[in-house]
Amino acid sequence: MAKDYVVGIDIGGQSCKLGVVDARGEVLAQSVIKANASTDAQVIVNELAAGVKELIVKSGKQGQIRGIGVGAPNGNYYTGSIAFAPNLPWAAHGEIHFAQMLSKACGDIPVSLTNDANAAAVGEMTYGVAKGMKHFIMITLGTGVGSGIVIDGKVLYGSDGFAGELGHTRAVRHNGRLCNCGRSGCLEAYCSAIGVARTAREWLEATEEPSLLRDVQEITSKDVFEAAVQGDALAKRVFDFTGRILGESLADFVHFSAPEAIVLFGGLARAKEFLYEPTLKALNDNVLPLWRGKVKLLFSQLKESDAAILGASALAWEL
Amino acid sequence: MAKDYVVGIDIGGQSCKLGVVDARGEVLAQSVIKANASTDAQVIVNELAAGVKELIVKSGKQGQIRGIGVGAPNGNYYTGSIAFAPNLPWAAHGEIHFAQMLSKACGDIPVSLTNDANAAAVGEMTYGVAKGMKHFIMITLGTGVGSGIVIDGKVLYGSDGFAGELGHTRAVRHNGRLCNCGRSGCLEAYCSAIGVARTAREWLEATEEPSLLRDVQEITSKDVFEAAVQGDALAKRVFDFTGRILGESLADFVHFSAPEAIVLFGGLARAKEFLYEPTLKALNDNVLPLWRGKVKLLFSQLKESDAAILGASALAWEL
Repeated sequence: MAKDYVVGIDIGGQSCKLGVVDARGEVLAQSVIKANASTDAQVIVNELAAGVKELIVKSGKQGQIRGIGVGAPNGNYYTGSIAFAPNLPWAAHGEIHFAQMLSKACGDIPVSLTNDANAAAVGEMTYGVAKGMKHFIMITLGTGVGSGIVIDGKVLYGSDGFAGELGHTRAVRHNGRLCNCGRSGCLEAYCSAIGVARTAREWLEATEEPSLLRDVQEITSKDVFEAAVQGDALAKRVFDFTGRILGESLADFVHFSAPEAIVLFGGLARAKEFLYEPTLKALNDNVLPLWRGKVKLLFSQLKESDAAILGASALAWEL
Repeated sequence: MAKDYVVGIDIGGQSCKLGVVDARGEVLAQSVIKANASTDAQVIVNELAAGVKELIVKSGKQGQIRGIGVGAPNGNYYTGSIAFAPNLPWAAHGEIHFAQMLSKACGDIPVSLTNDANAAAVGEMTYGVAKGMKHFIMITLGTGVGSGIVIDGKVLYGSDGFAGELGHTRAVRHNGRLCNCGRSGCLEAYCSAIGVARTAREWLEATEEPSLLRDVQEITSKDVFEAAVQGDALAKRVFDFTGRILGESLADFVHFSAPEAIVLFGGLARAKEFLYEPTLKALNDNVLPLWRGKVKLLFSQLKESDAAILGASALAWEL
């Protein structure tokens, strides 16, 4: 029987999303599995394998699955391992040979694994705004800032599988904010959802400026976005600032790989109306003249609920 | 007759170096042509073509030349052009289709062209310390700072042929020095020969600290190096500072492509004894823990006089 379908799995700290996908990027069936209950990787793998089998049956494509693609925090394409992933209790303290374990538990269906940002880049190239592009950089703006770099139509994995940690390049060189990684000034400390909320809180504390955000407890990036939508000046300036920091860093990335486009993806990318202009301006203000006005700044248009599954599933086509 | 030899040409502002090279990297014959006398590209091309023909005869390898590799400032691998190269009077104000012109003038020997730093990277990979490496970054520390990025054994050219302008990523984000490119804070403004001399001059002006350099008119990086060799404390600290700035930037580059090594090349790389420690320390202090202590910092060992020719010639093997 022709194997014309793949499974995509997006591994998250709270839950894992699974989908059976066809070659055009249609998700035929999907499910969500809670995966925060155990610190034992084998238990998680077994639960996932059961979920995969059930989903394949539900999709009616038994025997037609070419492979399983997995996107996971700290996932390594070369080794198939997930190592020291702080948000995954079952993979926080060592190296889990996840691809091999899952393949075995699924009756030897081949499994390909990479980190979530690389998976997103593959998804965007296979099904999204980067379709047909040979050189682009995907930046995922979520709780953290991740990246997937595509060169000559292939994800850049580097010498060890860990290339593309652009969220931890230094956006601010002196007196930069402490980042989750323990270093300071990282792009992630400014341009993640957490960074946006932090900017807002710092500014509210530093001034007396009126703002809708003063009524909010425990400000999140979503609050800042909603305040900006309502015309709140401080909230809008938070996005101006975030876009400027982001665009300055994007300029450096352009000097590295000369991409034809940069694609923004993830929760924070939904604030396109506020982020687009300041990010693009800072990008163009900070590149060498030869790239000024030439690099496209795009926002992912993949359906948010499908995007993670699609990205992971796209990996499996290469198996 | 087997075509087992190549010609390498290194294009400079004052002169061009030519060599006939065999597959093991032996330079069988070489010459230097003054190339600053004309603003007419065709004149330069004709002079070079005459030089190439003469050199081939001198080497005794007529009819055995597979191709010509050219390294040139602002050279573009995809188009074979040299465009807006400020140091080349004959290519400063437009785009010169150099590879095509030279090929024609040399009786249709194929010509491959790239910028000088990419050529250096190819040379290092073919004949030097990066032999056999699939992922490394070459940084050329000369009058300016250039770079050649190798990924999966191939030079990274990007979407337009201009990838790898790491000398113009921002090393200092606020109140950075003005760079030759018109922007500020670029790595090149600090870690080039000119940057080193400037650091020394600024520090001499800012303090009363005794230094051998106080007796020198028009300080160059070579003066700083020689003072450091004689134990001059200020000169040594100039290299500490230069190495720190360089290492901090290298850390960001590692986050991009996860190379197995970074190779330093060019005039300033001769100051290895003063640059190695501070550069490596700053690199390791500024990378994510997963790369700490893992990325090699190497210095090119290609014979300086041959290196430019070898790098350019190595390109021609791919023709």
